[in-house]
Amino acid sequence: MTQKEYLDKNQERFINELLDWLRIPSVSADSAFKDDVKRAADFVADKLRLAGADNVVVEPTAGHPIVYGEKLIDPSKPTVLVYGHYDVQPSVPDHLWDTPPFDPTIRDGKIYARGACDDKGQAYMHVKAFETMMQTNSLTCNVKFMIEGEEEVGSANLGTYCRANKEKLACDVILISDTSMIANDTPSLDVGLRGLTYMEIEVTGPSIDLHSGVYGGAVANPANVICTMIASLHDENRHITIPGFYDNVVELTAEEREAMAQTPFDLDEYKRELKIQDVMGETGYSTIERTGIRPTLDVNGIWGGYTGEGSKTVLPSKASAKISMRLVPNQNWERIAQLFTEHMQRIAPPSVTVTVTPHHGGNPYMTPSDSKAYAAAVAALKESFGKDPVPTRSGGSIPIVALFEEVLGVKSILMGFGLDSDAIHSPNEKFGIFNFLKGIETIPLFFKYFG
Amino acid sequence: MTQKEYLDKNQERFINELLDWLRIPSVSADSAFKDDVKRAADFVADKLRLAGADNVVVEPTAGHPIVYGEKLIDPSKPTVLVYGHYDVQPSVPDHLWDTPPFDPTIRDGKIYARGACDDKGQAYMHVKAFETMMQTNSLTCNVKFMIEGEEEVGSANLGTYCRANKEKLACDVILISDTSMIANDTPSLDVGLRGLTYMEIEVTGPSIDLHSGVYGGAVANPANVICTMIASLHDENRHITIPGFYDNVVELTAEEREAMAQTPFDLDEYKRELKIQDVMGETGYSTIERTGIRPTLDVNGIWGGYTGEGSKTVLPSKASAKISMRLVPNQNWERIAQLFTEHMQRIAPPSVTVTVTPHHGGNPYMTPSDSKAYAAAVAALKESFGKDPVPTRSGGSIPIVALFEEVLGVKSILMGFGLDSDAIHSPNEKFGIFNFLKGIETIPLFFKYFG
Repeated sequence: MTQKEYLDKNQERFINELLDWLRIPSVSADSAFKDDVKRAADFVADKLRLAGADNVVVEPTAGHPIVYGEKLIDPSKPTVLVYGHYDVQPSVPDHLWDTPPFDPTIRDGKIYARGACDDKGQAYMHVKAFETMMQTNSLTCNVKFMIEGEEEVGSANLGTYCRANKEKLACDVILISDTSMIANDTPSLDVGLRGLTYMEIEVTGPSIDLHSGVYGGAVANPANVICTMIASLHDENRHITIPGFYDNVVELTAEEREAMAQTPFDLDEYKRELKIQDVMGETGYSTIERTGIRPTLDVNGIWGGYTGEGSKTVLPSKASAKISMRLVPNQNWERIAQLFTEHMQRIAPPSVTVTVTPHHGGNPYMTPSDSKAYAAAVAALKESFGKDPVPTRSGGSIPIVALFEEVLGVKSILMGFGLDSDAIHSPNEKFGIFNFLKGIETIPLFFKYFG
Repeated sequence: MTQKEYLDKNQERFINELLDWLRIPSVSADSAFKDDVKRAADFVADKLRLAGADNVVVEPTAGHPIVYGEKLIDPSKPTVLVYGHYDVQPSVPDHLWDTPPFDPTIRDGKIYARGACDDKGQAYMHVKAFETMMQTNSLTCNVKFMIEGEEEVGSANLGTYCRANKEKLACDVILISDTSMIANDTPSLDVGLRGLTYMEIEVTGPSIDLHSGVYGGAVANPANVICTMIASLHDENRHITIPGFYDNVVELTAEEREAMAQTPFDLDEYKRELKIQDVMGETGYSTIERTGIRPTLDVNGIWGGYTGEGSKTVLPSKASAKISMRLVPNQNWERIAQLFTEHMQRIAPPSVTVTVTPHHGGNPYMTPSDSKAYAAAVAALKESFGKDPVPTRSGGSIPIVALFEEVLGVKSILMGFGLDSDAIHSPNEKFGIFNFLKGIETIPLFFKYFG
């Protein structure tokens, strides 16, 4: 039976298996879901075994477990390490979902659920592509699977795991589907990922909430202070003002920017999709450049004082914010965390105290477009989509990718099948069934050309 | 029996009755407490009847009820209208209370409970002072009670009630204990109250929360935008930047400021008490002036994006803030609300939409120090404390006081017995038993000198 025939024959089962996986709320950020995260790991471990993988283990870590499995057919053949993650972002605010985040629903050929695209749906394409190659005796490379449960919280323990298992994880390329492509009729390959530094700050003024009338005007208000501090992090050109922030940023050449400008992009469609009147970003750069090649700083969450119903005339004791920065080559995430911390302490007025806590981070990454693996990915996409993929640079981050290169000395291929409109990290996250099946069809082609 | 004898004989019962009232969580801001608010109204109505008041009624309004009662002894004698409120501020954050907010506890001679000072404790002094005068046949004036349940949410319905009951509420002076005095050995009389304009803003960017990597840097982040907007409301001298904001502010004369500077005040003690390194406020004004005679703007609450455990790399769709301004003579709260609204709309970038919602407000107020009522209050405090009271200007607001003057054409006397350190609106609100009993002792003296 050909791979195509096997896929056609089993696609309904493949979809139903994914729906079962999506029903497990594997939210890694919230300890309340710890057991569900474990269940999601056991689920995919079982599926790897059933697909024919050997030595499948659910490796415990200081945090959530890592699922490993392998099929080593011939030491003389190249080895592909497939990386993915089974943990998902929190689903809050749940009331904005049209259907429950962990009760997957199919509408208009799309699967709606938290994790549908990021990354259960895309990771599962690899499990089913592997099953397809096994069942059709067409596996042309050795394959290793490493599917983790902490990607959405910074892969805190994966680095330790990689350092401790260099031999076991030895490979010629790392294949990852955790990014998006331009459109269903426009395949693309991610050649760059932004890095990330995720911080939290807490501004404390008086020891307790005060009456805003009795004390207002005389005592520093932490909520006002945190706004002033955050506002000062950008200048009028949306340039980030943290001293040293841009020191190692690689500026693209005119040719590179020219090439980037060729990427298919419709600004009006972009604004319509997001329901915004206008975009806003760094002066002198296009929207694609602002997300692809420029570092940014965003408040991910802010809170302080009375946020309940009605009014409370209080001068809050504390105000907090979660702030993350996306980084580009050659910024270093730990260096940026240090610059951010020093800067926040420097700009805090003497009337308050500021504590800065790093959450996690990772360095930016570039995929070389002159490698054998990259050529294989291009060939695979060209064969399944009937056209050459467009090289793109994603605004997102997969912090672990830079670490793979550092620890394992191996580059990663970012062959994503999602769409930017899949609303990952947002309510109503979705993944097209077309995309899911197209991935299962394309991945074996990568193995064919790389093998 | 003398008033003093009656007070000594009954003080324990007076305290226990207050504790019973404090056990009722009459939080007016939160509709979940609606029935408790009603119970608190019924409670004080019963106590007024028992004390000897006539025509006691719990008047329903569009919001929480108003308790009215009266004792008219002689049309030829002056009439005192006692105003107070039985509603309280929300108790959140409850975990910061040493003992439960609605389970009153006496420690070191102080009653700890939400509303202990603001205003159940102070309002109840009047009920017990009235009982004392009745039981000792020493009532020298006609007295009317008006105790409302919406002071903490802007007295939305009291204005309507006053306009509809001008005859019934006709009086020569309004007596209010809802402010503080300088210290237990330093009586003071409030001659000024700040006004209040309480607003809420919501900044909306994209229609849903977005991935901060995929969109960060290209799409306006409402949390960053709201910080920038709020930060811009003060300049480097902590001057408020809303055009026209200071137009009607009355500047004090050098003599008036000189007199104010004589008010007993210890800045080090003030900072120690609040556990702050330094104060912060408008350049060119002292701490007492910043809270007493200058208008201010404070964020009372701010929220947006992901505020849960861990991290979520989200670009929030919305961010909101509750912002209140304290006003001084002759600012008009509705005019300020309009200037604020226009300004926020003007400074909002085109990439977001801003909605501004007014919560409530009231105008600033001044008590003339040359009136018969003021002289009676001075004489009463001098007799009970053994020294002349110091005239002060409170930073707080009792929005309804200005409305009383407008609708009833009568001035109010602000004879408060609390202390700034009573932590009203904060966790561990308290009221000294000394202060409670001193009030019950002093109030009849006011009636004596005014009658």
